[in-house]
Amino acid sequence: MTNSLDKGSPFQTISCRIVWSSKWYSVRQDTIILPDGQEGVYNVVQHPGAVWIIPVTSSGQIVLLYHYRYTVDDWCWEIPAGGLKPGLSLEETAVEELREEIGGTAQSIDYFGRFYTANGICNEVAHIYIAKGVSLGQTDHEPAEVMEIHTKPITEVLRMAHDNEISDGPTALALLLCESLLVNLIP
Amino acid sequence: MTNSLDKGSPFQTISCRIVWSSKWYSVRQDTIILPDGQEGVYNVVQHPGAVWIIPVTSSGQIVLLYHYRYTVDDWCWEIPAGGLKPGLSLEETAVEELREEIGGTAQSIDYFGRFYTANGICNEVAHIYIAKGVSLGQTDHEPAEVMEIHTKPITEVLRMAHDNEISDGPTALALLLCESLLVNLIP
Repeated sequence: MTNSLDKGSPFQTISCRIVWSSKWYSVRQDTIILPDGQEGVYNVVQHPGAVWIIPVTSSGQIVLLYHYRYTVDDWCWEIPAGGLKPGLSLEETAVEELREEIGGTAQSIDYFGRFYTANGICNEVAHIYIAKGVSLGQTDHEPAEVMEIHTKPITEVLRMAHDNEISDGPTALALLLCESLLVNLIP
Repeated sequence: MTNSLDKGSPFQTISCRIVWSSKWYSVRQDTIILPDGQEGVYNVVQHPGAVWIIPVTSSGQIVLLYHYRYTVDDWCWEIPAGGLKPGLSLEETAVEELREEIGGTAQSIDYFGRFYTANGICNEVAHIYIAKGVSLGQTDHEPAEVMEIHTKPITEVLRMAHDNEISDGPTALALLLCESLLVNLIP
């Protein structure tokens, strides 16, 4: 992301090595020169980036997942989301996640914007899409994906986001950033 | 976080081992039994949790950091934040981060709420505080912490959040969740 105040990097990277990796993400350990001239180590969780899609039906409902997350041992209200897949564009990934997670097809799918989920440790970028005219169909969940599909009115979902009832940070932020667009979709 | 729909865990954990660790976070690899009875592997980035503090001065300005993040090679607008430290409570960590990052002391510091930053891969919980009556003083940055301190009117910071100019997701979400409280602090 560019900014008028952008000053470039104050660090110099000397070397990089992967210290752990999985199918989904890895940990990179860099040796760097700090601004004070000292050598240091910086660890980066390397993630391919991910899309979050707000699915809005023709009748003005938002499709929410009630998703069990093993990482936090908790059930979370979320919109469909997933990591970027090799060979697929951002938009193709969004279309695919919509299909897999809610069996969804959309009349239109529009890019909204992006943010970092956890820039202190990880390079993941969250890309936000709004899908309109969504119809639900047959899902295609993997065994480790445990979730229920709910539809709720836009006003109710925005209330949940404002009242901090949506514990998945990227979902809550996507909804609040898109609030004025979503309000326009209320029938 | 509890929810009336809470159903407990659909997975059974068989074993856990740490496959990589650093001073700040680690990666745990669990062998689990999936709901379909198959054995599977789930990786969890283990993080101690972190606090994000919205610092509001007596004159109705928010203190923002313009922070270089090596993970994403980018300068980001952020509020003060930091991981939980051993032996410190959440509130003590918030007070300490305020002091270290902006040399800040506050007349009051109130807990607002929490959310997950990246529950697909990591167990990090972001805890949000609002600090009122903040005065700036001598900072205490480590060599790898490269940031500038800016103060901006509450209305301008909320505009930046709404316009997606704040690329640090947890900062943007903290600001939007606290919008009505912050508006009440405008002189």
